[in-house]
Amino acid sequence: MDQVYIRDVAKYIGQQITIKGWLYNKTDKGRLQFLMIRDGTGMIQVVAFKKEMTAEAFEAALAVTQESSLIVSGIVRQDERAAGGFELSLSDIQIVQLTQDYPITPKEHGIDFLMDNRHLWLRSRNQWAILRVRSAVIRAIRDYLDNNGFILMDTPILTPAACEGTTTLFETEYFGEKAYLTQSGQLYNEATIMAFGRTYCFGPAFRAEKSKTRRHLIEFWMVEPEMAYADLEECLRVEENLVSYIIQRTLEECAEELKILERDTSRLEGIVPPFPRISYTDAIAVLKEMGEELPWGEDFGAPHEVAIASRYDKPVFVHRYPAQCKAFYMETDPLDPQLSLSADLLAPEGYGEIIGGGQRTASLELLERRIAEQNLPREAFEWYLDLRRYGTVPHSGFGLGVERTVTFICGIHHIRETIPFPRTLGRIYP
Amino acid sequence: MDQVYIRDVAKYIGQQITIKGWLYNKTDKGRLQFLMIRDGTGMIQVVAFKKEMTAEAFEAALAVTQESSLIVSGIVRQDERAAGGFELSLSDIQIVQLTQDYPITPKEHGIDFLMDNRHLWLRSRNQWAILRVRSAVIRAIRDYLDNNGFILMDTPILTPAACEGTTTLFETEYFGEKAYLTQSGQLYNEATIMAFGRTYCFGPAFRAEKSKTRRHLIEFWMVEPEMAYADLEECLRVEENLVSYIIQRTLEECAEELKILERDTSRLEGIVPPFPRISYTDAIAVLKEMGEELPWGEDFGAPHEVAIASRYDKPVFVHRYPAQCKAFYMETDPLDPQLSLSADLLAPEGYGEIIGGGQRTASLELLERRIAEQNLPREAFEWYLDLRRYGTVPHSGFGLGVERTVTFICGIHHIRETIPFPRTLGRIYP
Repeated sequence: MDQVYIRDVAKYIGQQITIKGWLYNKTDKGRLQFLMIRDGTGMIQVVAFKKEMTAEAFEAALAVTQESSLIVSGIVRQDERAAGGFELSLSDIQIVQLTQDYPITPKEHGIDFLMDNRHLWLRSRNQWAILRVRSAVIRAIRDYLDNNGFILMDTPILTPAACEGTTTLFETEYFGEKAYLTQSGQLYNEATIMAFGRTYCFGPAFRAEKSKTRRHLIEFWMVEPEMAYADLEECLRVEENLVSYIIQRTLEECAEELKILERDTSRLEGIVPPFPRISYTDAIAVLKEMGEELPWGEDFGAPHEVAIASRYDKPVFVHRYPAQCKAFYMETDPLDPQLSLSADLLAPEGYGEIIGGGQRTASLELLERRIAEQNLPREAFEWYLDLRRYGTVPHSGFGLGVERTVTFICGIHHIRETIPFPRTLGRIYP
Repeated sequence: MDQVYIRDVAKYIGQQITIKGWLYNKTDKGRLQFLMIRDGTGMIQVVAFKKEMTAEAFEAALAVTQESSLIVSGIVRQDERAAGGFELSLSDIQIVQLTQDYPITPKEHGIDFLMDNRHLWLRSRNQWAILRVRSAVIRAIRDYLDNNGFILMDTPILTPAACEGTTTLFETEYFGEKAYLTQSGQLYNEATIMAFGRTYCFGPAFRAEKSKTRRHLIEFWMVEPEMAYADLEECLRVEENLVSYIIQRTLEECAEELKILERDTSRLEGIVPPFPRISYTDAIAVLKEMGEELPWGEDFGAPHEVAIASRYDKPVFVHRYPAQCKAFYMETDPLDPQLSLSADLLAPEGYGEIIGGGQRTASLELLERRIAEQNLPREAFEWYLDLRRYGTVPHSGFGLGVERTVTFICGIHHIRETIPFPRTLGRIYP
């Protein structure tokens, strides 16, 4: 009989079906055995009643252990008491593999043990829910961009030069030359927008940073939209539309997953445009009032971000940072040359920065001066300078960190659970 | 006035609009200047007629050079003689930057020069068309998988061990340990399918191969679907459905692009399931008939693939390769232990392999034996062996190379034009 997926059982009420999956857990009531079975698309309670099956099949139901792989057949019953609203009255069970001593038991395990067993931990209900949310978030991002005139442009991972200094770069040998793993595809997409108008890259990025916080991964995924003929205002408009689209669509598509995670979704429902905006300079004044004094010109740390964001129910834009806080390619504010036309988006509830971006300079002279001032290797940037020589235009873009966004939407503590196989300081296995 | 994109001009017939873009080329007819303008979404002919505009504006139309950035305003006219069916009667023009000496002129340039200027070459019409096709192909792949029960699982790029030997791996230092750039996410997604049923990864992969052919890139993108409880037959069914979906949807969405590329689309229209299948052993016999004799047990080279594929109008599956030709994780054919349950998909018209895949072994014993026989580092594979210890199931999957597929669909000669910034032997700039 063809396999039916648990997500589809509602279509088969009263019918005999076959499910192929694994035993998640079991409750023994003597002649009644309740098997909780998962198949990747969901879970269903399977009821084995001794009187309703062969002795051999009931023996198998008694014998089956946690994480055994198995194929069950039975009739779908609607039952409001059951999780998901359905259960399966078992008629036959075939054990594919009887699992012995599955390492992750219902008892508490330490995080190192769980991370060592990440390849198995993924089967646990919360991890399943988080990574389903991740997949929905990525689909929402791509759909938003594809439907709003952005063309996907995969930028290279192996690059000859650093976007923002070389200290946090992974280095490799490229047929006798040095190459580095990318930290951003932005510079490349400043080229592609001159050909395609609006583009985005969406791929892995790498920071060899020795920071071990709950907000950092060594290897993470980032989406970076870039737009020709767009100023900072237009950039912020796209950012708030994108972020609210991601959140509203995830609420729609992942209600079950967010319930498993016990996420307070009322905190997400109101996140619609416009988002509040505060200038860096005003934010410094607000921080002073809040007892988090910081000299003008210094970049925010995590505590400053959290303090500012705590004043809003929605994500907040902090815009016009001092030029010295931001990268060499940022456009100068025409109203105050000390400032850059930059903005970060800070998530509420203490989740910190999820987007950094702004307007890139269109000026060859400014760019040449900055490259010299910051001792960047000019030859490596010749192609990038060409973009200001041949048809330069005002343009803007931003980078949104996928894992930080998923951490925030799921309302979980640590970013390491938002990617299937996290790479953190000291961890590259499995 | 708000910017209108060239793709949308049909909605503005008879209306005054503003387009922001670049000059692609120009025809001088004295008091009439024909400016071909591109904005990334398309091209439109802009007609500057001296009598209909200020002297200053007409001077600007005379002065504007190739790849100058400019903002033009005028009235949209329907005109069947114009490329795209519309033209713009210019009323005003503002030059954002007057470009001097744009390096890529209408004359012929050598490939090295074009690759050195890849950041500019992208603006040329054929390159624009190819990369638009790439973007459509990727969207088609994702939509097919997302709509058929596959969950995206981003597998790691930095890995501790090699999937298939270490000679073609890029190595880097990971906080005192050795790490390698991934060649495939498959092994990881053999873990995730046990949690999610059907998954796929879609990311960059790397081969440090010293081959310089028109079918190889050092850095390329690959989609790798993996399915629990799926045998080789089911795998081939998904492959043929996916490939025909990609092709049919690209034909629908990229008619203009394929026309620019002068692709004979009649060769693509008939590519619908089922695809022909031939066993490796039968293929060897066919090759002998064709005068391309190869001893049984040897893997095919490009000429053999081309010869076999030339016999079919559709892509053809070659299945059940000798186990010795394929990787250690392949399932053995129960009918003949010399054979593996593997299959490659060969594209027609000489484009060669676009998919490799098959059924992975579910057996702990076989896997342990193969790892020992091939001297693979057993500790690095302990987590992978766990997948056969705890709830093993029959499972299958495959990898489709994006750039090879785009090369084939576009009908172009060389794979290097199918990715924005190709990484080939000796090239990592720009």
